[in-house]
Amino acid sequence: MSAPKGLPLDGLKIVELGHYIAAPFATRLLADLGAEVIKVEPPDGDPVRGWGSQKDGHAVWFSVHGRNKLSVTLDLKSAEGKKRALQLAKRADALVENFRPGQLERLGLGPEALHAANPRLVIARISGYGQDGPYRDKPAFGAIGEAKGGLRHLTANPGQTELPPPRCGVSISDDLAGMYAAMAVASACWGRDRPGGDGRGRVIDVDLVSSVFSLMEGMLPEYGMFGWVRQPQGAALKTAAPTNTYPCADGKWLCIAGNSDLIFRRLMPAIGRPELAEDPRFATNGLRCANVEELDAAIAAWTRTLPAAEAEAALEKADVPCSRLYDIRDCAEDPHFHARQTVMRVEDPLLGPVLHPAAPFRLDGVEPPSMVRWTGPAVGAHNDLVFRELLAGEGGA
Amino acid sequence: MSAPKGLPLDGLKIVELGHYIAAPFATRLLADLGAEVIKVEPPDGDPVRGWGSQKDGHAVWFSVHGRNKLSVTLDLKSAEGKKRALQLAKRADALVENFRPGQLERLGLGPEALHAANPRLVIARISGYGQDGPYRDKPAFGAIGEAKGGLRHLTANPGQTELPPPRCGVSISDDLAGMYAAMAVASACWGRDRPGGDGRGRVIDVDLVSSVFSLMEGMLPEYGMFGWVRQPQGAALKTAAPTNTYPCADGKWLCIAGNSDLIFRRLMPAIGRPELAEDPRFATNGLRCANVEELDAAIAAWTRTLPAAEAEAALEKADVPCSRLYDIRDCAEDPHFHARQTVMRVEDPLLGPVLHPAAPFRLDGVEPPSMVRWTGPAVGAHNDLVFRELLAGEGGA
Repeated sequence: MSAPKGLPLDGLKIVELGHYIAAPFATRLLADLGAEVIKVEPPDGDPVRGWGSQKDGHAVWFSVHGRNKLSVTLDLKSAEGKKRALQLAKRADALVENFRPGQLERLGLGPEALHAANPRLVIARISGYGQDGPYRDKPAFGAIGEAKGGLRHLTANPGQTELPPPRCGVSISDDLAGMYAAMAVASACWGRDRPGGDGRGRVIDVDLVSSVFSLMEGMLPEYGMFGWVRQPQGAALKTAAPTNTYPCADGKWLCIAGNSDLIFRRLMPAIGRPELAEDPRFATNGLRCANVEELDAAIAAWTRTLPAAEAEAALEKADVPCSRLYDIRDCAEDPHFHARQTVMRVEDPLLGPVLHPAAPFRLDGVEPPSMVRWTGPAVGAHNDLVFRELLAGEGGA
Repeated sequence: MSAPKGLPLDGLKIVELGHYIAAPFATRLLADLGAEVIKVEPPDGDPVRGWGSQKDGHAVWFSVHGRNKLSVTLDLKSAEGKKRALQLAKRADALVENFRPGQLERLGLGPEALHAANPRLVIARISGYGQDGPYRDKPAFGAIGEAKGGLRHLTANPGQTELPPPRCGVSISDDLAGMYAAMAVASACWGRDRPGGDGRGRVIDVDLVSSVFSLMEGMLPEYGMFGWVRQPQGAALKTAAPTNTYPCADGKWLCIAGNSDLIFRRLMPAIGRPELAEDPRFATNGLRCANVEELDAAIAAWTRTLPAAEAEAALEKADVPCSRLYDIRDCAEDPHFHARQTVMRVEDPLLGPVLHPAAPFRLDGVEPPSMVRWTGPAVGAHNDLVFRELLAGEGGA
């Protein structure tokens, strides 16, 4: 069950008591890095297995979301299930969970019980609002993290009151919380296990709202100092011009960053308006910001005549930084994604060939495909393996 | 220079050759976790110090962005600067950099040179497109990561062709890449230093585009299997109703998740339309999705009569999950943020009191304020301390 030699977390043993996104994403990242992850599911499986499209009764996404993990099933409400969970915790380095706060304690599997079984166990807890505070028991659904963390306010067009700010489009708050949990688990294991380490099984508390809020850059200190409240800027920037996202003939969008003086003077001829490059009204970034509507209109008049990919190619030829807004097909078919093996075709025994994204970190001497040791398993696929090993290792359960 | 006992990365020594956001964010997270971070800046400082509002010549954001770090200045193009950088690398556990690919090698500070000085050094490299592949040398500006990673396509209202999809509003691609780099550094240090560890100084390659792309959930496998291309959904969801973001009397927005049967039957009386809760046209989620315009209109007619905070309070009383879209003032003044110490007032010797966000992970036995050991220092503030220590430790430089 161990990872190919060369992965940094080879030998690290993780138990996941997770469901949906945040905890399973944390453990998937740790598993990509080489950890052994035992995912504990209820007998009917993590409900995330019902999400998205299915083939032959298996969720296509789970091929990725569950990759490199061992799946075992336990009824944590039964005495037998609880006993086995504690046995798994006993032999593990870390445990990652995302029950609602208090639920693990009610199951008799809170930090105290887990540390009684294994005082060195690092425990990472992920929740919507955190393990304490007045909102701790509120239901946390994905959009709340975006809304309360300050992100949804910014993902909007300025001054538009008819159209609501769109969702981020992915489960960003769960993802961020999972990433922070994974980072903290690896750090806690280093602090425990390094030469002279303290041997402590730390308890880590990560919440969705703070995870989003952690990305608010200078907004908090600037609000505190000056009372400034950052407002949404849409696709443009107030302080640089022209930089915006422009409509193309095929309904797609092209993002262009033409705001430096040199790039601006290359951009204008490329859109067939060389005279604007010499126009004193647009000679500096400050002047261009003051007269941005005319520039944006000129650029959009040109982009509207071409499909996004053609407009992009024309501007790249003029060495103007730009990118059309990639949809998943653009990503899947991009030559750079293929050269870097960011998109890989993986054989899944349950589904046939499946496109997998690479782990988001390359390691020297490790080919990205080798980091996918196996695809997301069926529910309970490793019950025999894990419980037999447990039995063998602990002399009977 | 060491962290208070109890932080997991106490004793881990990091050198940052970083600027702007991605690498400095990675090292700030590692510093929050207890690592010693020596930030190497050019003599006139990291250009990020010029971003945002200033007080007394100091960037307010840098109080947070540079916290818990030691700042030293070096001219890496000079022989003396290079020599000192190698001395720093020699005593470090890890180095994090975000120069453009090739630049570190041109400075004579590539992985080969660094490993000649210290073969155990973990090296994390962050760039727009990665250290290889056809786009490696393209300029990477923030919006490109969002665009090419697939996120900007999704952050949009469906079917709208007049308004471009807004930016995420924060430097999301830099942040994600920084988070992955921090996670990989901690993991590589565990793999090197644990009992039986391999002692290897791994080289890690993280790029902005793949970092964003890693959040695309089931989109890639579903595209590969069925050819489906996920399209933006705006603020609503196609498969659940009513769940959307609604305009309020004060121009703010309220996000409401009223799509479960039980919650729906509480939501309708709360907006003064109890008859809709019993209407057979809305009896199931499927029926509500089919008739969503009428429901959204009824809800919006009510939200438009109230300021967002009042509408939110009314729905919370009815136990309907919702949140107004918090701006930075809402975050800074929220009682839960205060109870959790997610927002802290920190005394900055350069700026006076500054609002800091807590580290995005709570650790048992560690109060969030103690994780801010000091605020972002002035350029080169630790030159004497670091170079004197270096000289002492290595018997003359």
